[in-house]
Amino acid sequence: MPERRRFTRVLDALPATVPFVAPDAIERRTGRPLRVRLGANESMFGSSPRARRAMADALDRVSCYADPESFELRTALAARLSTTREHVVVGSGIDDLLGLTVRAFVEPGEPVVTSLGGYPTFAYEVLGRGGVLHRVPYRDDRNDLDGLLDEARRCGARMLYLANPDNPSGSWHRGADVERLVSRLPEGCVLLLDEAYVDFAPPDSTPSIDPDDARVIRMRTFSKAHGLAGARVGYAVTAAETIAAFEKIRAHFGVNLVGQVGALASLQDEAFVAAVVRAVAEGREAYARLAVELGLAALPSATNFVAIDLGTQPRARRALELLLERDVFVRMPTAPPLDRCIRVSVGRPEQRAEFTAALRAILAEGALDRVAPPATT
Amino acid sequence: MPERRRFTRVLDALPATVPFVAPDAIERRTGRPLRVRLGANESMFGSSPRARRAMADALDRVSCYADPESFELRTALAARLSTTREHVVVGSGIDDLLGLTVRAFVEPGEPVVTSLGGYPTFAYEVLGRGGVLHRVPYRDDRNDLDGLLDEARRCGARMLYLANPDNPSGSWHRGADVERLVSRLPEGCVLLLDEAYVDFAPPDSTPSIDPDDARVIRMRTFSKAHGLAGARVGYAVTAAETIAAFEKIRAHFGVNLVGQVGALASLQDEAFVAAVVRAVAEGREAYARLAVELGLAALPSATNFVAIDLGTQPRARRALELLLERDVFVRMPTAPPLDRCIRVSVGRPEQRAEFTAALRAILAEGALDRVAPPATT
Repeated sequence: MPERRRFTRVLDALPATVPFVAPDAIERRTGRPLRVRLGANESMFGSSPRARRAMADALDRVSCYADPESFELRTALAARLSTTREHVVVGSGIDDLLGLTVRAFVEPGEPVVTSLGGYPTFAYEVLGRGGVLHRVPYRDDRNDLDGLLDEARRCGARMLYLANPDNPSGSWHRGADVERLVSRLPEGCVLLLDEAYVDFAPPDSTPSIDPDDARVIRMRTFSKAHGLAGARVGYAVTAAETIAAFEKIRAHFGVNLVGQVGALASLQDEAFVAAVVRAVAEGREAYARLAVELGLAALPSATNFVAIDLGTQPRARRALELLLERDVFVRMPTAPPLDRCIRVSVGRPEQRAEFTAALRAILAEGALDRVAPPATT
Repeated sequence: MPERRRFTRVLDALPATVPFVAPDAIERRTGRPLRVRLGANESMFGSSPRARRAMADALDRVSCYADPESFELRTALAARLSTTREHVVVGSGIDDLLGLTVRAFVEPGEPVVTSLGGYPTFAYEVLGRGGVLHRVPYRDDRNDLDGLLDEARRCGARMLYLANPDNPSGSWHRGADVERLVSRLPEGCVLLLDEAYVDFAPPDSTPSIDPDDARVIRMRTFSKAHGLAGARVGYAVTAAETIAAFEKIRAHFGVNLVGQVGALASLQDEAFVAAVVRAVAEGREAYARLAVELGLAALPSATNFVAIDLGTQPRARRALELLLERDVFVRMPTAPPLDRCIRVSVGRPEQRAEFTAALRAILAEGALDRVAPPATT
């Protein structure tokens, strides 16, 4: 007979936590709609008209289950990636695939390495399955590749998580450096390479990794450049034997029909995605100029957002609050050293203008200057 | 250092398996489209026009993440169920919520009770998490409530799964009998009550269960009567402390935007759902008459499908094959005694006519009479 606990030991031990408070929840709390929603790194440049047409057409058959194998989408992805369908699994966004991957590799009590202040949902999935997180601080506002590797070796990690480009810093490493990291992974440790923002990054930041290399599980999404966050479609690429193992446990009917259809159509609309990427690059540059003009620094970014350096955590937090009072939603990274920044998604020009006006007003009022400096010791 | 296994011990030990081969996969195998798709218990009466309009409108904002709290949908569901939002969680279909619930309660090695030949996806979720299944045979082609309870008590089950109405038999128990089962659940065992087909069932088959009763987790879906299977929306109702525990581990951003919007609109279109339920009842009666006419029996059904008794497993299997040769897709339950049946979803009149013609032709040819009878001992 099991002892009289209510849930599993892992769940019983977990604190109440959610990875993110959503903008919708903020609106319900304040009782006002957000005027500017630039905190969730959603694409403000919409989704492909071809994808929207395909999704609208698919509504006529939404009473049927979608193909659990996502056959057509996987076929198209495999062709794009010069690999085979057997190297690709589709999930309900990268979040779903993070959960699946942690579930496949990590038992309760086993060590997993990630960056301190990196993507909270990855940490949530590890802790929620009883994994033990080892967090390596950022170094020069970037993932510390050597530090991550050293820690993985030291603790005997089952998995190392790296987002490249990174969220929330926006930073990136060269592909060659990621390849070197792969070559130095300790035995028994897989690299979960989260490339959610890869579409926005310079080509030389994308490592060349053989899809047959079982040491690396590479993830991408339709939520960012493709503007399909609400449709929930992401995919992972890795060795066929790992995909086959995922097949034994994944939610086969989990990916919705409209999302599958939209992702496929969007993949084929390369001109649309290229235009989004150009618009985002323009917006990043505008944020960088704004920061200079306001006497601040913008961290270099290869993503669809920019971290703007406000000097200290209390100043960043105060800026966040004051922006929210103006119904402008951005986020603040959760851990030092990046928690001295606010993270703002690239909006359309009119949204950037609203954000700019709000930030300028806050600085002009000197509101941040009245924030106590951090205690020095 | 962990030992040099590739995946978790649970995953390493699992055989290659999928809960269902999808109709899409059958079409790829045969190279021909299915003429009649009546094997997945999808609604052949479509989805609410109001829901489709709402979903089409939602495509304009699909580049944003959906509300991870499904606040509006939960509010509407809670009102409908005379409870509070804190008693409701929304997931990507019941399948998602089955996985979540097993994950919350069942540790590797712990016993779980279900019916032999019951919903394969539940078994898949239990085995995929290392749970140990104890399967109780159907009795008189229905779930054996006493047998399930006895087995739960005997093995010290953490969870008992009951689908009411049942899939694949179509049978149901009276609500009062389910209530008695709840009152007799052994200490430490929760009832997972899958009510996917509840909309089609007679009112007295629905038990009265206090949403505060933590012994029962009740699940419903928009995939059946609401005709939104491809949109992936289901929900669970149970005590607030269990929902709060789910909040610590569930995929917060997993339910897609279009599905949330469609489910809410469909919930408000009661006339549409009532018309579907009437059309399904009519179709069930037509199948029952057909069975009698063909000298077969149809099992009583409170769902959107009917199990037609072909006498023996080999005859049922052969009928399945011969129907498929005619591009008619139905299913056969996986275990005795129900594997002597084929399970056919209620189609529209023209689909039923095609199924009827195909089955009639197979019987007229005497093809099933040439199937070897089961060995007798």
